[in-house]
Amino acid sequence: MVNLYEDERIDYLTANEQMKIIQSPTVFSFSLDAILLAHFAQAPIKRGSILDLCSGNGAIPLLLSQRTKATIYGVEIQERLYDMAKRSVALNQLDEQIHMICGDLKEMQPILKHSTFDLVTCNPPYFKTPAPTEYNHNEYLTIARHEVSCTLEDVIKACKLHVRPGGKVALVHRPGRLVDIISLMRQYRIEPKRMQLVYPKKSREANTLLIEGIRDGRADLKILPPLYIYQENGSYTKEAEAIIYG
Amino acid sequence: MVNLYEDERIDYLTANEQMKIIQSPTVFSFSLDAILLAHFAQAPIKRGSILDLCSGNGAIPLLLSQRTKATIYGVEIQERLYDMAKRSVALNQLDEQIHMICGDLKEMQPILKHSTFDLVTCNPPYFKTPAPTEYNHNEYLTIARHEVSCTLEDVIKACKLHVRPGGKVALVHRPGRLVDIISLMRQYRIEPKRMQLVYPKKSREANTLLIEGIRDGRADLKILPPLYIYQENGSYTKEAEAIIYG
Repeated sequence: MVNLYEDERIDYLTANEQMKIIQSPTVFSFSLDAILLAHFAQAPIKRGSILDLCSGNGAIPLLLSQRTKATIYGVEIQERLYDMAKRSVALNQLDEQIHMICGDLKEMQPILKHSTFDLVTCNPPYFKTPAPTEYNHNEYLTIARHEVSCTLEDVIKACKLHVRPGGKVALVHRPGRLVDIISLMRQYRIEPKRMQLVYPKKSREANTLLIEGIRDGRADLKILPPLYIYQENGSYTKEAEAIIYG
Repeated sequence: MVNLYEDERIDYLTANEQMKIIQSPTVFSFSLDAILLAHFAQAPIKRGSILDLCSGNGAIPLLLSQRTKATIYGVEIQERLYDMAKRSVALNQLDEQIHMICGDLKEMQPILKHSTFDLVTCNPPYFKTPAPTEYNHNEYLTIARHEVSCTLEDVIKACKLHVRPGGKVALVHRPGRLVDIISLMRQYRIEPKRMQLVYPKKSREANTLLIEGIRDGRADLKILPPLYIYQENGSYTKEAEAIIYG
């Protein structure tokens, strides 16, 4: 049994229908980027702990739980999204593995230990400042998409604070911010080690960036083969299908 | 008429046979990376000035001269390579457009004006320090391939010194150094704006990186569609062929 508010609905998180998630078109729905990040990040398999920042309705913790036995913490600043995530965790009977926390990622040190997590993931807000027309139009989406409650530097600083030395930090973002991301990762001693660029189609510019760094790692970046999402005819490529359909 | 020393030979620079270049297997031969960089860099077409650092036997100045009327300066620290480049320029009757300089890129300020060039290109040494077995084995190749005479920071500092504000800096390098390159470009206020990754084949990691920044530019990187060099059967892809065959 689960309580659903207003325009909420229950969707399948992946097409294999093994996991359900509570969504709402006006509050928050998870995106393809969350699926890509959960797939890209290298999670410990049998034990350990994972932290997901800017967790939204909990898509990344839920997806990661399918392939790791590690304890997963998710931090979300918006009470309403946190509540959706918490109910989705219960709906999937994952309360023992996934722990959602409602709070500000900048203030997690009293609650979460520093330098302990094997992996920190984050699908942060992408846009620097909201256009005036977007501000207050839908506060849920403004906070989720724009750097209102946290900047990119806040995110990377929090990743650094909570990941253990030698642990991994995996982010998804827009290619336009790669330079900022790399500069900040270096500044906070998370050395970028793996990167993958996601292209909507062949012959188009990349529109999504996946990057994973290691705290105190040695400098040596690998750039994985590109990932294309759509074929020319508009249907998913085989690689994208394999990720999306779980 | 041209003088050829020792094991030198005259090759065509591109398969359209419009340009010749003097090479030597034991001293220096230009690589695919030089062709890729000359193609990737955005050169002024009708006027202006271009500087090529770590110019080797002059492949990049020669290639760029095919599509720009700008004056091109090439700087090469090794006397022997400089001499090959100078003779290749003469061989192609380009002495009015291309000026080769033998010298250290760190000491070009008395010779070349600072903050004046529309474009600075560089295909620098890729490797941090030579393995002891490589040192002195072939000094020409050691200096061309390893950071013996100049470091990556020396290169980017020199690019910054000579490019005009708003002018472009285009580099080719290995993906493993992307983090260093981006950090140094930011440090010297050359904002990365365009990047392309070159993959030997599908499903393989990138092995070459093309990046162009603008001095004092606004932060916003575009990542171009990937470039594949070889098809599965080992022959060039159409895109690679179009670049290599001119």
